[in-house]
Amino acid sequence: MGSLANLPTWQEKVSWARAQRDASLAKVEPKLNGIPEADNLPLSSQDLPKAALTAREIEITEQYGITELLGLLRERKVSVEEVTRAFLRRAALAQAATNCLTELLWDQAIERAKYLDSLPEPRGALFGLPISTKEHHGMVGANVTTSASFVAWVGKAHGGPNLLYDTFWDEGCVFFARTTQPQTIMHLETESNVYGRTVNPYNRDLTSGGSSGGESALLGMRGSILGVGGDIGGSIRCPAAHVGIYGFKPSIKRVGTAGFRNAGAGKETIQGCPGPMTVDRDGLELFMKVALAAKPWRVEPSLTVKEWTPYKFTRPPKIAVQWWDGVVQPHPPMTRALREVADACRKAGMEVVDWNCEPLDHRKAWDIISALYWPDGGKEVLGLIKESGEPMLPLTKFIIEEQPTVKELTQHELWKLCVERDEYRARYAQAWSKTGNDGHREVDVILCPPSFGAATPHGQSRYWGYTAQWNLLDYPAAVFPVTQVDPARDAKDLDYVPKNDQDKFVYEMYSPERFSNAPVSLQVVGRRQEEEKVLAALAEIERAMGRA
Amino acid sequence: MGSLANLPTWQEKVSWARAQRDASLAKVEPKLNGIPEADNLPLSSQDLPKAALTAREIEITEQYGITELLGLLRERKVSVEEVTRAFLRRAALAQAATNCLTELLWDQAIERAKYLDSLPEPRGALFGLPISTKEHHGMVGANVTTSASFVAWVGKAHGGPNLLYDTFWDEGCVFFARTTQPQTIMHLETESNVYGRTVNPYNRDLTSGGSSGGESALLGMRGSILGVGGDIGGSIRCPAAHVGIYGFKPSIKRVGTAGFRNAGAGKETIQGCPGPMTVDRDGLELFMKVALAAKPWRVEPSLTVKEWTPYKFTRPPKIAVQWWDGVVQPHPPMTRALREVADACRKAGMEVVDWNCEPLDHRKAWDIISALYWPDGGKEVLGLIKESGEPMLPLTKFIIEEQPTVKELTQHELWKLCVERDEYRARYAQAWSKTGNDGHREVDVILCPPSFGAATPHGQSRYWGYTAQWNLLDYPAAVFPVTQVDPARDAKDLDYVPKNDQDKFVYEMYSPERFSNAPVSLQVVGRRQEEEKVLAALAEIERAMGRA
Repeated sequence: MGSLANLPTWQEKVSWARAQRDASLAKVEPKLNGIPEADNLPLSSQDLPKAALTAREIEITEQYGITELLGLLRERKVSVEEVTRAFLRRAALAQAATNCLTELLWDQAIERAKYLDSLPEPRGALFGLPISTKEHHGMVGANVTTSASFVAWVGKAHGGPNLLYDTFWDEGCVFFARTTQPQTIMHLETESNVYGRTVNPYNRDLTSGGSSGGESALLGMRGSILGVGGDIGGSIRCPAAHVGIYGFKPSIKRVGTAGFRNAGAGKETIQGCPGPMTVDRDGLELFMKVALAAKPWRVEPSLTVKEWTPYKFTRPPKIAVQWWDGVVQPHPPMTRALREVADACRKAGMEVVDWNCEPLDHRKAWDIISALYWPDGGKEVLGLIKESGEPMLPLTKFIIEEQPTVKELTQHELWKLCVERDEYRARYAQAWSKTGNDGHREVDVILCPPSFGAATPHGQSRYWGYTAQWNLLDYPAAVFPVTQVDPARDAKDLDYVPKNDQDKFVYEMYSPERFSNAPVSLQVVGRRQEEEKVLAALAEIERAMGRA
Repeated sequence: MGSLANLPTWQEKVSWARAQRDASLAKVEPKLNGIPEADNLPLSSQDLPKAALTAREIEITEQYGITELLGLLRERKVSVEEVTRAFLRRAALAQAATNCLTELLWDQAIERAKYLDSLPEPRGALFGLPISTKEHHGMVGANVTTSASFVAWVGKAHGGPNLLYDTFWDEGCVFFARTTQPQTIMHLETESNVYGRTVNPYNRDLTSGGSSGGESALLGMRGSILGVGGDIGGSIRCPAAHVGIYGFKPSIKRVGTAGFRNAGAGKETIQGCPGPMTVDRDGLELFMKVALAAKPWRVEPSLTVKEWTPYKFTRPPKIAVQWWDGVVQPHPPMTRALREVADACRKAGMEVVDWNCEPLDHRKAWDIISALYWPDGGKEVLGLIKESGEPMLPLTKFIIEEQPTVKELTQHELWKLCVERDEYRARYAQAWSKTGNDGHREVDVILCPPSFGAATPHGQSRYWGYTAQWNLLDYPAAVFPVTQVDPARDAKDLDYVPKNDQDKFVYEMYSPERFSNAPVSLQVVGRRQEEEKVLAALAEIERAMGRA
């Protein structure tokens, strides 16, 4: 692999990074068989595991939910090493299918598994649980550096401890794979010059979403059971939704980011928050419970000092359905999903009302947040891109240069924008509180799309409104799988007249065949810092849908 | 009084503002007698009430603590109107003695009192309680505008609702007086071109502190029983300490500021927080309990969603005494106060250790916070001063132009400073956590000076380190009265060799006679967002001191 010193071109740095990744994957033992060559991969990767993995590996990676798997591990009905090896091999398969990994932690994971198996008693809330992690989250013990998808940072020593991961480690988990993210970590897809493009495991012509799209592709292949993402505009929820897994974005400052590596350190007008991406709902609460039980605010003092306190509804929650956001009409399968879930909730005895957000002007929210993402006009990241000579990707151009709101701000302009943000937040909060006026019960959660539709074709994720809205408001939000695109039921409305350019762009993108079988998910949103209530509402909604 | 339209000079605007104030004071009925002319006021104002007020007024304003007074009001053993009139007259006296008011709310307060007396049943947690308020806090119903001490804002319509005050109003309080603050609201004294200088009720040659120095002078005269201040660098604690009352600065975002009027709106790198200034300890918890029971986060969404949850020590707290801050040696009476309280705590069975903060570099904290106060280089406030033509006061010059750290920052410079701030906070948190290592109990609170000494002579409050340190860290902190300067016990250490320029400045300021009888207070500091624990610790400490 050689050293990175004096590598003259960005392409050589990329080759070095990929060689590092490939070397980590070459450790897989036994080798994976039965995977077609890259050029001959099927559109959907869902049938690949049957060909490449053993029945036992498939059982371990597919048959158990998180709680069940943890139970088996704790009771030592399965060894940590066997579980770890199964997920390592399945992750390698996911990489071959979707290009979702930056590194497989083969040696470290097996060493860790053996250590845990050697303990006289299992210990820790995550004993033996494999956890996959996003590349820009610094880690102790990982071989490679943390480039955060900047070629300029490839091979530079940016690892190091990470408070959240230290907590999981202390609770007995096994880190086994690190996953891709896009250039600048600010696309709702996953493409970088360092590792190329990550694709959707249900349809390689579609994106796995982003920015935590390596995690979603991996989890969508069941190559992981619990992953860690981060979300500042949809980066957990959009990819989770696009592969039909669960994802949760807490309010900021509930979960720590100390040890994460990305541009914009010290920028605090809009911030991201790490959160879980999991194959089942249990994983969301488990993640939060374990993360907060460690009292991370004692180490990272900007975090909110508040224990995790599970919420219990004493009567069925009141749900407000946001059918559209007043800017862009969702695609037909999304509207069908909303209808199906709303009906189920109503049948289960919940009060279901409409969330009419047109007067709340979601477009204004986007104008504010898109400017607050880059109060330096994007100078820092553009400089990092320039530093290596790597090309600026189209979705980077979209989110920085094509947003009319983005410019380098003076301090006074920044203050003014923060005031606008706060006023917008106050208006939204007021609207929410008002639902409880005149003898009505206040709305508990909003049920809404996590995107205008299923996963988009590559390069088309150019409308963030359905997720970024809740980042601007700092509301906690969970996504959960509902259905799949079904051409028989999700016909295009040929009479629809788009209301604006973005609406037109989104409308024209849709044809049922293009998205056939793609997962369709929904989003549950709560008021700021009501993380516990959102997860409780999600449980009620899923029960109404007939799930356990 | 006339209108403000077309007033050409800043002096005329000032005259207009003072005439407004004087007209509000002219309503006092019966008139106050027995107060010497301004030029003949005694050094201490403590004996003035006896001459000017009736025995019953003195009883009402002096004889009861807050809990007791609220009890009498609730049981209707005293009418709200009688209480209100007594405090109104005593506040007018305080104004004559210390120049602490911007407006006496004579008519409104009496009207409100009559209304409360007319209710068939008393209602609200603050039923009938007079509350005084700092001028820059917007208010509904106040006649005059909110100038925030800028001549440029005099007479402009900047009142309006204020979330915190609305809460108190809903709980049945009576607003009766509005109080002075300094130019820019960023001095630890109280002098503005609008209202002149506010003086200490114990010694008119000393400051009442600042920026909530109108409140402290008023409360130090017992012209109010509970006032609302705000603190971004010491503005509650310093003035409370200088007049021997109680004050409490919560962590930011625990209590709301919606409706406050000051420069720097939208600046969020360092923020202030309102808090109580009271004649007794009960008032601190009462303020917090009532403020948070209203769930202000539902209206002001940036606030922390966390109920007020009283803390109970199950064993005596562990106290760390900070004898000095590593920069400036406190004056002898302050060191004596520390020693007396530490001894009392030890005698009461508490573990008392030293807080050695030299390795924690408090000077560095000042470098960070002094820059973060003015990321625009002070441009906005200097512009406001220039706009009217009012002169810049020496302590404005001190905190903006004389701080080498202050300059207009680029966004990247700002981010860098925020990273430094967060790193500093993390180091401090780590040091605190470490006190719990090796089988030791972790320190519960730090006991430290709230200032290098008692109230300073006017213009000398040029070292903020003893309070601003806890703003940078965002730690909650309460001040409480301990003793008074006693020349017999507080001799100057003539052998002391100052360690730096600031230390020299502070050392040379001291002579026991100059501060004779000035109140000396101490400060109790807890970890971030542990408001409840700080107040519980203060109660334990005061019990150790033999107080109820």
